[in-house]
Amino acid sequence: MRLLFLYFILIIVSCQPMPPQPSPPISKVDSAMVKQIFDEVLVNGQAYDQLRDLCFNIGPRLSGSENMVKAVDWSKKVMEDLEFDRVFTQDVLAPHWVRGKKESASVRSKIAGNFDLSVLANGNSAATPKKGITASVVQLDSPKDLEAAGEAKLKGKIVYFSRPFNQTFIHTGRMYGDAGAGRFNGAASAEKYGVVGVVIRTLSSAPNNDDTPHTGNGAASAVPTLSMSVKSALALEKALEKDQNLTITMTINSRHFDEKTPTHNVIGELKGSEFPDQYIVVGGHLDSWDVGQGAHDDGTGCVQSIEVLRALKAIGYKPRYTIRAVLFANEENGLAGGERYAELAKENNEVHLAAIESDGGGFTPRGFGMTAGIDSLMKVRSWLPLFNKNTITYINNGGGGADIGPLGREFNTPTIGLVVDSQRYFDIHHTDEDTFDKVNKRELHLGAASMASLVYLLDKHGL
Amino acid sequence: MRLLFLYFILIIVSCQPMPPQPSPPISKVDSAMVKQIFDEVLVNGQAYDQLRDLCFNIGPRLSGSENMVKAVDWSKKVMEDLEFDRVFTQDVLAPHWVRGKKESASVRSKIAGNFDLSVLANGNSAATPKKGITASVVQLDSPKDLEAAGEAKLKGKIVYFSRPFNQTFIHTGRMYGDAGAGRFNGAASAEKYGVVGVVIRTLSSAPNNDDTPHTGNGAASAVPTLSMSVKSALALEKALEKDQNLTITMTINSRHFDEKTPTHNVIGELKGSEFPDQYIVVGGHLDSWDVGQGAHDDGTGCVQSIEVLRALKAIGYKPRYTIRAVLFANEENGLAGGERYAELAKENNEVHLAAIESDGGGFTPRGFGMTAGIDSLMKVRSWLPLFNKNTITYINNGGGGADIGPLGREFNTPTIGLVVDSQRYFDIHHTDEDTFDKVNKRELHLGAASMASLVYLLDKHGL
Repeated sequence: MRLLFLYFILIIVSCQPMPPQPSPPISKVDSAMVKQIFDEVLVNGQAYDQLRDLCFNIGPRLSGSENMVKAVDWSKKVMEDLEFDRVFTQDVLAPHWVRGKKESASVRSKIAGNFDLSVLANGNSAATPKKGITASVVQLDSPKDLEAAGEAKLKGKIVYFSRPFNQTFIHTGRMYGDAGAGRFNGAASAEKYGVVGVVIRTLSSAPNNDDTPHTGNGAASAVPTLSMSVKSALALEKALEKDQNLTITMTINSRHFDEKTPTHNVIGELKGSEFPDQYIVVGGHLDSWDVGQGAHDDGTGCVQSIEVLRALKAIGYKPRYTIRAVLFANEENGLAGGERYAELAKENNEVHLAAIESDGGGFTPRGFGMTAGIDSLMKVRSWLPLFNKNTITYINNGGGGADIGPLGREFNTPTIGLVVDSQRYFDIHHTDEDTFDKVNKRELHLGAASMASLVYLLDKHGL
Repeated sequence: MRLLFLYFILIIVSCQPMPPQPSPPISKVDSAMVKQIFDEVLVNGQAYDQLRDLCFNIGPRLSGSENMVKAVDWSKKVMEDLEFDRVFTQDVLAPHWVRGKKESASVRSKIAGNFDLSVLANGNSAATPKKGITASVVQLDSPKDLEAAGEAKLKGKIVYFSRPFNQTFIHTGRMYGDAGAGRFNGAASAEKYGVVGVVIRTLSSAPNNDDTPHTGNGAASAVPTLSMSVKSALALEKALEKDQNLTITMTINSRHFDEKTPTHNVIGELKGSEFPDQYIVVGGHLDSWDVGQGAHDDGTGCVQSIEVLRALKAIGYKPRYTIRAVLFANEENGLAGGERYAELAKENNEVHLAAIESDGGGFTPRGFGMTAGIDSLMKVRSWLPLFNKNTITYINNGGGGADIGPLGREFNTPTIGLVVDSQRYFDIHHTDEDTFDKVNKRELHLGAASMASLVYLLDKHGL
């Protein structure tokens, strides 16, 4: 009985992160290590070349696509070639949606004229009949206005959600959140009012003459939904001012498969010397939307995560904890990779000291956002002086990443997101324009070096 | 006599900046004003549209070119149309150099093969004879190595200065300074050793496969000098490893005019209510190199400076000091505009509270660099909490701008430079790639809003 009790105690202890240990304050050694890490990444970093390879030789890689299968093999091989201590995959079952033949939408108006809209179906959208849906249009700011409009006004109509990005916000992520409801749940919310189609002003921070539509996921609905470029949205609004009876014809040829599609998280490890069964995760997501090359979203986070391990290994650093680069599956349309990672961590009694994610693009780093207890937050903030003032200048209270969210939710694992300069991200996010040429080598590598430095500090000083 | 004395006293007082006055610490009013300024620029800013116009309808504008004449007229009209209180020009006489027919350089080697180099003559370079100069090559790191090499080894040769950018520096401006001697004074230094030509690895932060040569000024010399792309430089080095006797043939068709060329500083003013004869300057330089469109260097600084006045006027702010947007002539190959501005300030007994320059590209702002007394520096630092952490996060001790340098030198005027994210600037600086499409609207406008906020704070609180 006592033995059994001891056994339980051992399980409990092994499932908890190490309690905060007395660790020396940051020192000249830390300063020299951070400098060595930055030098290694800036001079010998391979993330940029890996990203070129991923973008041009594989390209976009939505869950269920051949490209995603290739990307899993590719990233596994990259990490094996770098001779990480262990490279393996985790089986994941992900939602399966395909766009099919290119979508279209056009306006017909005897008063305002006929013209095509530059559009992309939103991810997860239902298909239209082959001949499309034609209906007149009700313009609303966002789904919150559906109820006031009411079924009588909305039934049989296409709803246009027009909410623009609020340009007064400094961080564009805030704009995205503020304007996003039309895409996130516009179709799902509109369904009960008898709406037959939803079109939205695309979620873009680009200037008004930008003609690039953005895709991205929304809640499941029988109502087909698409995004139109800012330029098209403004043209539609102008036309609606002249003719409230104009019609839109929209065609979407998507298919949603009931059966989930097998995919994989890809994981590389540097084994810890003191706490080999406790983990520090650094990750991004390997899947992308089916347009562009998935460069900034989130090829950059993947190659940065691999670079963290490569650089630490290259400078001969022997971690105390096991450091994992996790390339998550299916962030874009399901989050099945992140959920599965947390599920397996539970099954395997894995303990995580912290998890870091890069999923805001490979731009110049500006800070970290951290969701953790106040003591951990203050500890990480005490490391700020180690970073150059043109890289990491703050540690936000709050932040993390979609893929590491389940770890935080299930285990209270501290989660940390790399915050980068956000101005260019939502110009190209989820578009044909998210391509390798938009990535600057040094910006990408500064992000990787910032993450590697944080991993080093977490590994040395604990949390 | 007493009246005359009083007159002298008045002159002396009027020539000195106001002594530091007791001013209230930053307040909610300041915070609201900074927010209002940022909102105005981010929502209604015209800098981006003005820059498009300047880049596409005028383009590159070296001193002495027709385009520079057009740019003077254009910027005067822009500020007149904005109904600034006063718009005027200052006559400037600038050095006059033209590139002429496109330069060329090629390698000949029986062992390593023959190939062309991707080159641009450095500004101010002497011409070669029409048939070019052909000579074998001595590779040196930088001009400091000339003396050790000695005349015997160098006479009749082309010297190749190979110093690369040191990628371990975080701010790319530091790389530029560190690697720049080959261009800044390579030809002038090499002349006395009987060197017949100087070629350098171009001053670029871009990856090794980048094939874009950068131009830029160097000290006067009879020795022709050009820059070759990073890709060409590495190809040359590889060839030199195989064949130390290879030759380079270089042709430069430039012309330097003895007579200076007339050009203009263009100035717009918002008149001060309390100190109309004391000035706060915000500026950039209107001239550019003769390649690309002069977008980031320094079209952005010009349109940002105009935007500062536009935004302050638009929100109805009545400045105490006279606020000047100064678009300086001839920064690139002479600095005659900045020198002339200071000269006229002296002639006219003008007093300047401070001068701000934007000449590091229109990228996201990160800080200001300030050359001033410690009290002024600490005062400006006390305003940091007014800025969003994703814009201005530091006030460097040291900094300013080339064009406002003479003001600082002659009057001890505090000079302040906008420091922006530097990672992309030296990829395109002084090249065919410095074009409008490299500028992000919000990044540009965040810089303008940061400058306008600083102008407001200087105007309100003094220095």
